Amino acid sequence: MFEFEIQAKDGAARVATFQTPHGVLHTPLFAPVGTQATVKALTPQQLKDMGTSLILANTYHLFLRPGDQRIAQLGGLHRFMAWENPILTDSGGFQVFSLSGINRIDEDGVTFKSHVDGSIQRLTPEISIAVQENLGADIIMAFDECAPPHDREYNQQATQRTHAWLERCLTAKTRTDQALFGIVQGGIFEDLRAQSASFIASLDLPGFAIGGLSVGESKTDMLRSIEVVNAILPENKPRYLMGVGTPYDIVQAVGRGIDIFDCVLPTRLARHAAALRLKDRLNLVNANFADDPRPIDEECNCYTCQHFSRAYLRHLILAKEMLAATLLSIHNVYTLIQLTHRIRQSIIQHTYLSLIEEYQTP
Amino acid sequence: MFEFEIQAKDGAARVATFQTPHGVLHTPLFAPVGTQATVKALTPQQLKDMGTSLILANTYHLFLRPGDQRIAQLGGLHRFMAWENPILTDSGGFQVFSLSGINRIDEDGVTFKSHVDGSIQRLTPEISIAVQENLGADIIMAFDECAPPHDREYNQQATQRTHAWLERCLTAKTRTDQALFGIVQGGIFEDLRAQSASFIASLDLPGFAIGGLSVGESKTDMLRSIEVVNAILPENKPRYLMGVGTPYDIVQAVGRGIDIFDCVLPTRLARHAAALRLKDRLNLVNANFADDPRPIDEECNCYTCQHFSRAYLRHLILAKEMLAATLLSIHNVYTLIQLTHRIRQSIIQHTYLSLIEEYQTP
Repeated sequence: MFEFEIQAKDGAARVATFQTPHGVLHTPLFAPVGTQATVKALTPQQLKDMGTSLILANTYHLFLRPGDQRIAQLGGLHRFMAWENPILTDSGGFQVFSLSGINRIDEDGVTFKSHVDGSIQRLTPEISIAVQENLGADIIMAFDECAPPHDREYNQQATQRTHAWLERCLTAKTRTDQALFGIVQGGIFEDLRAQSASFIASLDLPGFAIGGLSVGESKTDMLRSIEVVNAILPENKPRYLMGVGTPYDIVQAVGRGIDIFDCVLPTRLARHAAALRLKDRLNLVNANFADDPRPIDEECNCYTCQHFSRAYLRHLILAKEMLAATLLSIHNVYTLIQLTHRIRQSIIQHTYLSLIEEYQTP
Repeated sequence: MFEFEIQAKDGAARVATFQTPHGVLHTPLFAPVGTQATVKALTPQQLKDMGTSLILANTYHLFLRPGDQRIAQLGGLHRFMAWENPILTDSGGFQVFSLSGINRIDEDGVTFKSHVDGSIQRLTPEISIAVQENLGADIIMAFDECAPPHDREYNQQATQRTHAWLERCLTAKTRTDQALFGIVQGGIFEDLRAQSASFIASLDLPGFAIGGLSVGESKTDMLRSIEVVNAILPENKPRYLMGVGTPYDIVQAVGRGIDIFDCVLPTRLARHAAALRLKDRLNLVNANFADDPRPIDEECNCYTCQHFSRAYLRHLILAKEMLAATLLSIHNVYTLIQLTHRIRQSIIQHTYLSLIEEYQTP
């Protein structure tokens, strides 16, 4: 279980397989986000049809509603949401800091106010692991603290806490059929990133994640942080860049040794009438598209592009029809999954540098 | 084209085929409603997978937005909404009276205020036919006036106007690949219904519709009106009962010789957390379902019942996830389509009376 096997390399970019209880993952891969046990506006069948291999679900949301114990009693998250392929759950750490009301952080954990009903709730490394064991994802994440990227002192503290919490997560963990990934923090500070990577790498973990990026820092800072960290993380384990997902970011990060991505971008854009393309975006509200018979992308093979015109999609958006979000989500998620296929192909063919060349506009 | 062939009969109930330019329809059938060129929350693929043969689209809505000329330029309604099977469009008459703002009715037509942008618009029999020819549905409807069911004087006038408008529709019609159905009106008044049916039946039309029912009258009045009308309409042509769609109503109306049904009920209930079953409904917001691992209906083979629990559906509803409307719409539409399969089967087997027995609760 959780074997990671590199099949091809081109520079730092690699193509690999990662074994999980619910199937083999082929990396580099992009995972759409199913925050509340559903990738918004899409059925599991649609996700499968567009080639989705891994989806992410949010521990914070499911802990609050419908409750992890309820999901466990109903057979676990895979069965609950009818997703037979691998699932990754985050630890709840990021959402506790970004979504919940007043929170109190201490060495033991975090007390916060639920955004659902205002109740006071608590997450600690032990509770996060217990919740994630109830959910039963294939890949689970250590409970971490994500600090604002430019605050050096806060990042120093948060990194130490993240390390101590990781050790407690390892102690708390009881299931052997879940891969616990540690998370490297440290903001934009190279020395903190290096220290954090060294500590996390010193533990015998089935995989590693880089957190605290794509949260306001510059692209240069983001990419340099990835380089610093990946120079230290062991090569023979999967590397997951959390919350990152523009085509440019994915291509650049794979070139620096990242294997797994997740992001709400494709589904969030879809709900705001924006169609993701590999090198630009279309805002389908635009009156230019009112009579446009072309699909979003003439080279795209997704269900949406194979059947519907920009004019039709614009009509659905103006008419406030739910189908707009579904059709745009299909296209946007498919676009990122197709990109990872293309990435794997070009690594195998040792042409990854020219692929990077194609994506010079962030 | 438009041949209607009766294959089996059991009492007044019949199983038949109706040829259209986009394929053969097997009746009795239920058509879900795609008001704005989309059956709400469902893709054409999902509709096809659940066995949908015919869908209805609303002339009033498409005339106002995105405009019938635009749809014509984009290749017609089938192509616009990517529905390859038959489509029926109504005439706009019903919506002009029920949805639009202040309207002025005269012998020539109706002037009304658009619910989309407040603009003043006009529909006449000639405009309705021109719009429906631009949309290009397989079955189109005559422009009619639907009066409140208990107002005798109004129904008398409305019936006369509906008859005069039907003759103008026939004159205005230019396409030969669309079947124009006339509509019988007359409220709950047997003599008016009989007069209207006699007039409509006297014209050589490929099919007939009964309008102005299921709009506030009693079940007894509705069913008696159907009997009066169907005793007069020719047997060898399809009969369409407009806007009717509970399981009870469908079973009773088929028993009185109706072939085609449409209704927003299954998709509207779905958006309000209600699951349609053949003999009752579940309100999935109910706390009883919070931990219920069963599907909506243990005997249902729809995608939703094959994959998801009541507990999961309730969670989606409380979390305000769009997937709730999609999964409930799949189940609700599938339930009515399966009912029509069962109806066809029992007519062929001459057991329709016992099927009617099963549906005694309206």
